Amino acid sequence: MLSNRKTVHVEWGDCDPAGIVYFPRFFEYFDACTNALFEKAGFGKPQMLKTYGLLGIPMVDTRAQFYAPASFGENVEIETRIVQWGRSSFQVEHKLYKSDVLLAECSEKRVWTMKDARSQNGMRSEPIPEEVKARFA
Amino acid sequence: MLSNRKTVHVEWGDCDPAGIVYFPRFFEYFDACTNALFEKAGFGKPQMLKTYGLLGIPMVDTRAQFYAPASFGENVEIETRIVQWGRSSFQVEHKLYKSDVLLAECSEKRVWTMKDARSQNGMRSEPIPEEVKARFA
Amino acid sequence: MLSNRKTVHVEWGDCDPAGIVYFPRFFEYFDACTNALFEKAGFGKPQMLKTYGLLGIPMVDTRAQFYAPASFGENVEIETRIVQWGRSSFQVEHKLYKSDVLLAECSEKRVWTMKDARSQNGMRSEPIPEEVKARFA
Amino acid sequence: MLSNRKTVHVEWGDCDPAGIVYFPRFFEYFDACTNALFEKAGFGKPQMLKTYGLLGIPMVDTRAQFYAPASFGENVEIETRIVQWGRSSFQVEHKLYKSDVLLAECSEKRVWTMKDARSQNGMRSEPIPEEVKARFA
Repeated sequence: MLSNRKTVHVEWGDCDPAGIVYFPRFFEYFDACTNALFEKAGFGKPQMLKTYGLLGIPMVDTRAQFYAPASFGENVEIETRIVQWGRSSFQVEHKLYKSDVLLAECSEKRVWTMKDARSQNGMRSEPIPEEVKARFA
Repeated sequence: MLSNRKTVHVEWGDCDPAGIVYFPRFFEYFDACTNALFEKAGFGKPQMLKTYGLLGIPMVDTRAQFYAPASFGENVEIETRIVQWGRSSFQVEHKLYKSDVLLAECSEKRVWTMKDARSQNGMRSEPIPEEVKARFA
Repeated sequence: MLSNRKTVHVEWGDCDPAGIVYFPRFFEYFDACTNALFEKAGFGKPQMLKTYGLLGIPMVDTRAQFYAPASFGENVEIETRIVQWGRSSFQVEHKLYKSDVLLAECSEKRVWTMKDARSQNGMRSEPIPEEVKARFA
Repeated sequence: MLSNRKTVHVEWGDCDPAGIVYFPRFFEYFDACTNALFEKAGFGKPQMLKTYGLLGIPMVDTRAQFYAPASFGENVEIETRIVQWGRSSFQVEHKLYKSDVLLAECSEKRVWTMKDARSQNGMRSEPIPEEVKARFA
């Protein structure tokens, strides 16, 4: 299974008055990591959206557990992989480390989503192309 | 059980190129709602931190499910309550509605946390004062 | 001249490890205030974009001066008005107060912008409709 | 004069419904670049704050001009230098390029700031140590 490891420098602006990463910023990190994994598989987001007429791969379910904080100025490493493919959804897993200590974990369920003016929310799910899945094997 | 209902106006800057709320912003909304619930209970965050020598109430576990998107310019309503008190942690639940349609749900586990220079991460958990819990009953 | 006054509650997540608003968040506040002014003039952003085929009103020049900090838990008031109309651009001014003390000021130059697939950046400026300007008089 | 060049990958979450960087995110980029310049000069932010008892280097005046947009998936290069030292303030300049095309420029005036419980805002400016200035020469 293809995985990606991305270093993130924790910025001053990512941290809250307690001096630690404000937790929604971790979800921004994780989102960037999912996109980086796709990019590693050959699907840069702008091209992927264009090629498949995608609106995006919106989140439908995510859970994160935070075991220890990270502070500004630190580097963390995030390891990302897709752990399960459904028909039109897939499951991503992130593990966030500081010097090999696991600080946080996150799982994401995302949906392969097209624009659809006739749908209630202006979008609909679609089966994920097999060629996409194949690039992560 | 004390609950709070907060209206959030979805801003242009909260939305991504798909035109819908970028999911980490929902966690910002939810965080603000937890603070608003405490404020309703009489614990404005600055005063609460001062009174109890708190560093904060950091997140240790959160899960959100997104059933339908929200777009810029819309108002959403978020209903927040504490569903369980532990010794030093507590569980918060948010339900996010647009015109009575449930768009998203979130659960949070947070910890009552003090500064502690001798701890590994500069902080430690503490038992939540009973007078705090009492204000939410 | 139409003006708008908007109260913003400074959130924990808007503040940095110094405990004060992280300055890019002020620009988010100001952006929301410009949209609120348009809404007051009868141009809710989603409708305005639809009606005029607008891509948005992107920023081309902005300056902010910060005279004193704001901290989490505080309410600030932001007064917004359009101080000048050009052919396809306009100038917005924000004044941010805490209990009548001026904490910050910001000026913005924005451009009335349409999608244009043939333009280099996929967009082009357009003359602002007179009926739009008229609503701010 | 010491300068720093930093590559920033424009993330999906940095962009607005127009598909381009939401302008407050540019200020986040610039802020990270100022910190990166200090780091290059030997002053990682956590250490710098500790060594000098600094609260931070808050912004007092900033102006940015945006000549052309940047979109998600693109890499931009930001060149940063300190262009003027005052007694307790300094001026930073950023130039943001995409493939050698100047997309944006920003100037910042920041103040060397210490905690001061007796000051009105809990902070006061201080003369910048000469040894700090010397590292940027």
